[in-house]
This record gives sequence, C-alpha cells and structure tokens, in this order.
Amino acid sequence: MKELDPLFFPKSIALIGASPHEEKLGGIALRNLLRTKKNVYPVNPKYEDVLGTRCYPSIREIPEAVDLSIIMRPAVEVPGILAEHAGKARFVLIVSAGFAEVGNNALQKEIVRIGRELKLRLIGPNCLGIFNPHHRLDTLFLPPENLKRPRRGNVAVVSQSGAVMMCILDAVRMANTGVSKAINYGNAVDLDAAEIFEYLAVDDSTEVVVSYLESVADGRRFLEAARFLSARKPLLILKAGKGAGGRAAAFSHTGRLAGDYRVFHSLMKQSGLREALDFDDLLDAAKAVSYQRPSHGNRVCIITNGGGSGVLAADECARLGLEMPELPTDIRNGLREIFPSFYTVANPVDLTGQARIEDYRQTLQAVGDHYDSFLVIALTGVPGITLGLGEYLRNFRESVGKPLVVHIAQGGVAPRLIRLLERAGIPVYRSPERAMRGLAALLDTRGGRHG
Amino acid sequence: MKELDPLFFPKSIALIGASPHEEKLGGIALRNLLRTKKNVYPVNPKYEDVLGTRCYPSIREIPEAVDLSIIMRPAVEVPGILAEHAGKARFVLIVSAGFAEVGNNALQKEIVRIGRELKLRLIGPNCLGIFNPHHRLDTLFLPPENLKRPRRGNVAVVSQSGAVMMCILDAVRMANTGVSKAINYGNAVDLDAAEIFEYLAVDDSTEVVVSYLESVADGRRFLEAARFLSARKPLLILKAGKGAGGRAAAFSHTGRLAGDYRVFHSLMKQSGLREALDFDDLLDAAKAVSYQRPSHGNRVCIITNGGGSGVLAADECARLGLEMPELPTDIRNGLREIFPSFYTVANPVDLTGQARIEDYRQTLQAVGDHYDSFLVIALTGVPGITLGLGEYLRNFRESVGKPLVVHIAQGGVAPRLIRLLERAGIPVYRSPERAMRGLAALLDTRGGRHG
Repeated sequence: MKELDPLFFPKSIALIGASPHEEKLGGIALRNLLRTKKNVYPVNPKYEDVLGTRCYPSIREIPEAVDLSIIMRPAVEVPGILAEHAGKARFVLIVSAGFAEVGNNALQKEIVRIGRELKLRLIGPNCLGIFNPHHRLDTLFLPPENLKRPRRGNVAVVSQSGAVMMCILDAVRMANTGVSKAINYGNAVDLDAAEIFEYLAVDDSTEVVVSYLESVADGRRFLEAARFLSARKPLLILKAGKGAGGRAAAFSHTGRLAGDYRVFHSLMKQSGLREALDFDDLLDAAKAVSYQRPSHGNRVCIITNGGGSGVLAADECARLGLEMPELPTDIRNGLREIFPSFYTVANPVDLTGQARIEDYRQTLQAVGDHYDSFLVIALTGVPGITLGLGEYLRNFRESVGKPLVVHIAQGGVAPRLIRLLERAGIPVYRSPERAMRGLAALLDTRGGRHG
Repeated sequence: MKELDPLFFPKSIALIGASPHEEKLGGIALRNLLRTKKNVYPVNPKYEDVLGTRCYPSIREIPEAVDLSIIMRPAVEVPGILAEHAGKARFVLIVSAGFAEVGNNALQKEIVRIGRELKLRLIGPNCLGIFNPHHRLDTLFLPPENLKRPRRGNVAVVSQSGAVMMCILDAVRMANTGVSKAINYGNAVDLDAAEIFEYLAVDDSTEVVVSYLESVADGRRFLEAARFLSARKPLLILKAGKGAGGRAAAFSHTGRLAGDYRVFHSLMKQSGLREALDFDDLLDAAKAVSYQRPSHGNRVCIITNGGGSGVLAADECARLGLEMPELPTDIRNGLREIFPSFYTVANPVDLTGQARIEDYRQTLQAVGDHYDSFLVIALTGVPGITLGLGEYLRNFRESVGKPLVVHIAQGGVAPRLIRLLERAGIPVYRSPERAMRGLAALLDTRGGRHG
C-alpha cells in the first residue's frame, strides 16, 4: 500500500462539525459523504444523531481509528480538536480557513506542531479536500446541484485553490472527459504538490495531471517530483502569482510566498516542464492529452474549409514553434488534378466554403503518411459539412494513429458533429488558435513552449 | 447620401447565377434575398422564372439600373459578365473565387480593368458579401439553419475572410449582442478596409467595429482611416498572417501580401490602435465595448469568492499594465470590522466560498468611489450565490456608471444569473483572465496594450 492510499481511499471517515442543516457547510459535506460511504462518523457535541446516523461528541468517542478525519470548525477551535486526534486518525483534512492566509501565523504554527507531535498527516488548512470518483469519495462542501461532478476518467486535478479546482472540475465535465482524483490542499502545511505528484506518477487510473499552483515550499523537491511525474504522463501546470499584484493576492490566499515567477519559469523551462498560459489554455491542453496519447514529431498539416481560420491556425502554429512543411510535390500535383481550381492546394489545404466530405477524405488520405499530426477545420455554417465527416475522421484517426484535433465553430450539425467526434476520442475546439494549442499539447509533453 | 450607402442599403439587387436549387450557392443566396427584399432580379439564362420570381437572361435585360449586383458564377465567366454591367449597376459584389488567391493574376487584373472602365465599384472577388440587419439585407450564401443570424445591434464586422466573418457573427450572437453591419471583402481589388472604416466612423447605428485583416493595400491610408474611426468609437483589430506560415496562408487566401507583421504592429502601436491577441480575445473585447462605454482611468478593484480565481485575474491585470491599488486604510478597517476574520480585505477582496450577497454589496458600496472599474467574480458552485447578486450588480452598475465586468464559471444559478447580468448590460466571462481582458477593453480604447 502506498503512503497516500488511506487519504484517497479511506475505509472510514470522521466529519468534525457535521450538521443536520442543509445550508451549513458541515451539512452539505455530510450529505455528500453519506450518499456513497458507509463508515462515516459525524462528530458534533450538539447532536446524538444527524441525518439518521449516530453522532459523536468528539473524535475520541469513535469506536475505531479512522483513515481520514475532516475538520469543518472555526480556525480557533482547530488546535483543540486536533489535540484529540491522538491515535484516532492517519490523515486530517482541515477545511477551516483563517490561518496564515489572513495573518494568523501563530495559529497555523500551532496546528503544525500538534500534527507533528501526534504523527498526523495534515491536508490544508483552508481547502476543499478530495474528490475520488473511483472510490466514490466526495468531501467537497459544494451542493451537487451547484457543481455537477464530472464522471470517472483519467485526469487528476491537483490544485492549491479550491475555487480553481471547482472550475477545473466543471471544465473537465464540459470537455466530455473525466477525473481520476482531485485534491485541493490550500495552505499546504504538510501535504504539498510534490508528494501528490509522486503518488499520481504511479497511480494506474491517472493518465494526465492538471495542476494549479501558487507557491511551492521546497523548490528542489517540487521540480524533482514534477520531472518524475512528467517522465511518466503528461503534466500540465498553471502557475499563478506572477506579477506583484498576483503575488500579493496569492499570499493573502494561502499565506505562502509565491516567489519570483521568473525563477520558477526558468527552472520549469530547464526541466522541460510545460506551463499553461492561462486557465483556458490549461484545460484545452488537458482535454487533448486526456483524449489522445502524445507523440513525437512536430510537423502539422492543416485542412480547412475557411481560409481565414486556416491563417489564424497557421499563425498560432508558428508562435508555438511547430512546423508546417509544404505539401510534397507529388501530393500537390495529385490533389490539384482532382480539385476545383479555386481550392488552395498548399499547407493549409483550403477546400473553401464549397468543401465536401469527399474532399477532406481525399486530402487526408494523401497527406496521412507525410505529417505527424493534423488540424481539421470544419465550419458548419456552409452547406457541405455533414455528420459523415465525423464518421470519416473517426476511421482516419483509428487507421493513422497520430494526433488529430478539430476546430468547429458554429451552427448546423455542429453540436451533433462535436459529440460524435469527442466520443471517438477526437477533441474539438471553438477557435482555430485554441485547437492549435490543443494539438501542440499532443506533440511534445516536455515542451515548455509556452511563454 | 454617403458613397457606400447604396452598397449597405441597396434599393434594387441583381443576383447573377441565381438558381432554383436549394443546395446551390446561388439558390441559398436567392432564398435569403427574397425572404426580405422586394426589388430582387434573378439573372440566369437557363430559367424564365426562379422561385416564383421572373428571371432575366442577363443584367442588360433588367428594367432598371440596380444599386447592387451580386455575381455567383465561375471565375472564368466573370470578365464577360462584368462587361455587361455598363450603366446597369453601381456596386458589384463578386462572390466567385479562383482569382489571385490561386495564382490567376491575369484574370484578376482583367476584372479590375473592366471595373475601372465601366466606373463600377467592386467588392471581392472571393467573398461572402454583406449582412445589414438594419436594412434586412443578407447576401450570404449560408443557410440560416447552418448559421443563425445575430440580431440588430451596435457591432460592425469588417472581415477580409468569409470564414472568420461567419465565426464572428456567431460569436456576437452567443455574446447576447447584435450587429449593425457586416461585410467580407475578400481579395479587395477595389473596396478595402480603409474606406469601410471611414464609412462606419460616421454610421450612427455602429458603436463598435470588429475587424479581421490579413493585408492592407495602402498602409498609410489604412492607418489614417483606422485613427479616424478609433477617435470616434472602439475599433478592435485582429491581424492575421503574422509568421511565415501564416503569411503564406494569407497569400493563398486572398492573393495579397500580408507584409511584415512587425512593421504593422509597431505602426499600430504608434497610432494607439488596439490589436487583439487571437479570435477569442477579439470577441471578448467586442462584447465588453458593445455592452458598456469605455472610460478613462485604469485602477481596477477585484471582488471574488474564490481566492485562486482572484489571483489569476490579478496576474492578468498586471500583464495588461492595469493598476490594482490597495484598498484605502479607512475602507479596509471598515470592512474588517464587519467581515469574518477569514475574509481577505485587500485587493482582490476575497470573500471566500462562504460569501453572501450582502458581503458583495457592502464591499462594492465601500470601494465604488475609489476605483475606476470593477471585476466581480461569483463562483456559483458554493451555496451563497443567488440571483439577488445579479439584481444588486444591475443597480450598482446603474448608480456607479463605471465599467463592471463579471466572471462566472459554472453550476447552480449560473445560466440564469448570466442572462440577468447580460440583459442589464454587464458582460460575463467564463474565465478570470478573459474577464480581465474584457475589462481592459473598456478602460482605454487607444491602448495597444496587447503584445
């Protein structure tokens, strides 16, 4: 068993601050836990019973030592509650806020001291906790009607911010992909990103790791863990707290120094680690690598039915340092013979607004062997695009086995075509530049191209 | 009457290449025209009648001189057709592709020569044409079921690419805003962006101009027109054809040289003209300036219920060169007295996942006079956010009269809250960085901050 297994797969859970009231955080979290878990022990001296489950006055009265204890009580009470945990829990998730992030450094030091003394592993404080659909574990104090949970999948989420974790979970769901594990670790007095990365590197259900970071306690250990992880699976990092304002905000957020971003950035680059530009870029890349396996080679072919959209994709391709070699002469001549004279047979191949599915088929068949990856643009505002394109692309992707990403904007068959493609493991993006950034994520996971 | 009025408000229209067949471009365009316009003259020697309307063998047989003639016939036929236009049309929109963009320079020169000789104003070739909902004019060969048209509004679209114009029209519709006029001018052998800018600068129904450009024929005239326009209303430009690949693609697209992007960029910057980063950035900025009037001053206050989202917004704020001054001491002390100790009273103000509407109200009331603009982040995954926030923000925006932009990500009341806010003229964005970029568009239209 691995060190963090009892945290992600707890057999028993205590919830300190459990409440029968639906509107209270301790009420929402209890409902979410009871929905799927059996050995849940609510703790609250005010009740003998909450939501039909026996309630304990303190963790000391619980008949077993739990794998995970969750504390949802005001910050000032946390040291006292923690002191009662001796021999009663392995991992303690401190949801409560009001520590170093608002200047209460003494209070934070006190819980660190107690944790060490009692050999407790601490998560937080000032965090949301854990979502592990593979174990049906959900400690988040977010009503499911407010935040629909994503399904099981291959994306792990490691976030210093609870808010950003919420947004990532939702974006993962909207991208028609799923989550293997999600954890928000807040002020990180004990458990930090590095240790989570090490765990996820050898976690079979995780194929991609998406991480939002503001600060790292031990830079060297962080980089080692990040390298260890990214040698095994794609690791996508969004580092916040870049400018002075952001750094100050990050400090007020988790009470830790974000450090000089230029130093972080250059270390990341030296280590071949990829940084996302912003929130959308993080999720666009995550979508691509959760759908398809990254591959080597950076020669891109663009096939479009909209000239301008092809130009925007080509610009982004150059900005990302990818190559867009010209079509080989024999292929060019072959396609020129079969296509109308107003099609542009180059890279991008511009099939114009009059493109038919057959034209995409003939182009891809011709170029399939000569490029490493393909960006297909299919604007559905014009008459020629039907669901048949989706069926053909699914077959093409299966036979060619190289990265294939699609940009579809609007109208007509777009919603059905997008569904068909994404079910077939072909990610679709709403802008040409975002599609190219998605494709870039598939071409070299050790890039550090951004910025 | 202004020079381009007959183009945007034609009283009579000839459609050369009109077809009774729904699947043909000349059939789609005819249907779209007949739906709203009376004096439409289909031209096609094969028919005496199409869709119940008398059809003419050539433009020469039409009983009047039309304001606008639209040619939808193969490129090789265009010179002959154009030669028949003597005295029969003022503006000729050449939809046909297959000219300089595929190397047919002689053919393109020929139509330029005929146009000059017959004193015809030419639009295109290789273009989609015009959409003017204020005149119910729609020359686009795009079935309405494939591309839903946006409603009337204050955004003019000037695009060298038909594909990008389609995507902009759809994005404008999705942003709950509307279009004043849209034009795609393709290879631009005669009518170019500069002349359209001059027209739109004094067009009352246009309050914002969104432009996608690949090349400009006369750089000096373009810059003069762009300056003239942007002194009167926000002008947002996305220049494509930046790298070598994109430049080659732009040349294959409209047969014109995109030129050295660095030169274009530095001239734009010197002229205080704003360039969008990419397609999303163009539309995000357009949404903001179509909702609210830009204002001077660049001091931003961020109010959030998610710490990490606030940090990302603060980073983007710094990147854009905007200021995020600290809260004045008296306001800070005042808010500290009324808020729980785990709220962060700084800039960003972090009301945490426990924020209530009342907390937003008290914060905005306190800071309203001290900042130039406001970014409100309301993550609806947590329990405290209700529609009441939308109602309060509507009132706040009315009374404060300064730019206000909102970031809402997901879940719960999000869809209804977004609708309420956008109806009240408050633009909502799905990521913190995009929200900040939207706000930046409102703070200084003569920025050139990007890139």
